[in-house]
Amino acid sequence: MEKLLVLSTNPDLDITAYQQLNVQVFTAQSIQPKDYAQITIMLGWQPDLSTAVLESPNSALKWVQTLSAGVDYLPLAKLQAHHILVTNMSGIHAVPISQTVILYALYFMRDFPILLDNARQATWTPRPALTNALTLEGTTWTIFGTGHIGSELARLLQAFHVKVNGVNRTGHPVANFEHTFAQADWQQAVASTDVIVNVMPLTNETTHFYNQAFFDYLQNLYLFVNVGRGKSVDTSALVEALHTHHVQHAALDVFEQEPLAPDNPLWQLSNVILTPHYSPQMKHLGRAQHKLFLGNLQKFLKQDTSLKNQVDLTKGY
Amino acid sequence: MEKLLVLSTNPDLDITAYQQLNVQVFTAQSIQPKDYAQITIMLGWQPDLSTAVLESPNSALKWVQTLSAGVDYLPLAKLQAHHILVTNMSGIHAVPISQTVILYALYFMRDFPILLDNARQATWTPRPALTNALTLEGTTWTIFGTGHIGSELARLLQAFHVKVNGVNRTGHPVANFEHTFAQADWQQAVASTDVIVNVMPLTNETTHFYNQAFFDYLQNLYLFVNVGRGKSVDTSALVEALHTHHVQHAALDVFEQEPLAPDNPLWQLSNVILTPHYSPQMKHLGRAQHKLFLGNLQKFLKQDTSLKNQVDLTKGY
Repeated sequence: MEKLLVLSTNPDLDITAYQQLNVQVFTAQSIQPKDYAQITIMLGWQPDLSTAVLESPNSALKWVQTLSAGVDYLPLAKLQAHHILVTNMSGIHAVPISQTVILYALYFMRDFPILLDNARQATWTPRPALTNALTLEGTTWTIFGTGHIGSELARLLQAFHVKVNGVNRTGHPVANFEHTFAQADWQQAVASTDVIVNVMPLTNETTHFYNQAFFDYLQNLYLFVNVGRGKSVDTSALVEALHTHHVQHAALDVFEQEPLAPDNPLWQLSNVILTPHYSPQMKHLGRAQHKLFLGNLQKFLKQDTSLKNQVDLTKGY
Repeated sequence: MEKLLVLSTNPDLDITAYQQLNVQVFTAQSIQPKDYAQITIMLGWQPDLSTAVLESPNSALKWVQTLSAGVDYLPLAKLQAHHILVTNMSGIHAVPISQTVILYALYFMRDFPILLDNARQATWTPRPALTNALTLEGTTWTIFGTGHIGSELARLLQAFHVKVNGVNRTGHPVANFEHTFAQADWQQAVASTDVIVNVMPLTNETTHFYNQAFFDYLQNLYLFVNVGRGKSVDTSALVEALHTHHVQHAALDVFEQEPLAPDNPLWQLSNVILTPHYSPQMKHLGRAQHKLFLGNLQKFLKQDTSLKNQVDLTKGY
């Protein structure tokens, strides 16, 4: 009998459905240290408890299903050494993240910082104060990362008549992107682009990918968006670029340190939107997580190896 | 020789181009009362001056090209009595207005009122405060008005996998709408809809169309948007509906009185976005206006009667 440790209290994760498949379910509340070695499947990750299970002598752990798309916070080398199968939730966040990115862009393009500020003061904004009044139509975007999220975003942008470039490791073509570039050719990819969006997974190669050299290369970029991972950006280089107008606006959902400290200078910049790792949020996200895990669990129990969203532990995504 | 009165100082309206067609151009600054009767074409409308030209004894006026889509502010009966051709700018605002409406919806759905409020206070919003976290996907919209703007909005919403109903006078089908209903069947049209958008022209039939009976019929509507004309809405009935939760949120760009007075109670409602008749704004809107007028002017000079955007003065649009 498989023994499953569920590390989330989201009621949309329907534990009864797992028990009906003849799986014994433990939670963070019910598990005892004597049970650690018997756990064969983990759904979710809580650093202390999950590491204790993984490193338990004679651990029976075979499979970790994360509740996130990114797996950068996992001890990847250790999981690989123990031959643990890891699957992630890639794909289920594509819709809320893409729509949040469109919101960020329209927020700046349609003068919302000025309009909302005036509305708070019960003031009808005078026309000359409205300096943007842009639309998405005819703009050029470059999306770093052409997976589920990048591809869904590109699809939506096409409906807005945006020219969409994609950047991935090798430059291989991907549906919904007009052009794709290899990561090494990023300078070509961002030439005359209006908006840059980061949705790359965090790996050694993408850590501080957006550094001073990157931002220095940009000529008055309209908007930089990070909905990938905070550590892909050298934050002080970005702040400098916002001051020197290499970048006009930024929308950041992820940060090198989360939560962002109250004294972080980013909060004070008027040309920046900060959201608290919110972009993947969706009411009933748990339903999508449950559906994906249940499908994988059914396959796992039948020794079917075609589980969805298997992570390459060497590449880290 | 045709004599054109240009009633706008927008430099994108290239007066030289009109002069090159052998048209004599007057402006509000250059015209003298003795010239009023000679004017044959008016571009734009300034109430006092335009009325003086129209009512000038032996007026030669033949054609008025407005700079707006709506023509409700024109003396339609008088223009009809004088057999004046009226053309409007319908169509050129479809892109900025549609994108602004998508921004309004995402602003509420993605918890921006709460997130921006916390960001102003350098606070990382705690998860339980985030009560919406919706996406457009799977929502149902009903758009009153299926012309250029309604149709462009419906096209964009389809890309977001929204179910889009349209309402027009007769219920005739229109591209991009899943279902269309006649105005008289509005109750069917709004049954189980999440978002209602008004883009109807203002006529006798649409004045205070959205009244207490209308709002009372709604069951906790997620969002009411008005980017048409302010007088289509009975504002006090809407405010009441927002208090009684027949309507959860509203986004209003047009008002019964513009500019909205500083003491209007709408400014104080936290579940309302107010923008100052901004949705059609676009940098270089004048270029689109110039292009449409120039095309019409060329036809007019050749006695070609197929001018674009001819207004039916009886219907009022």
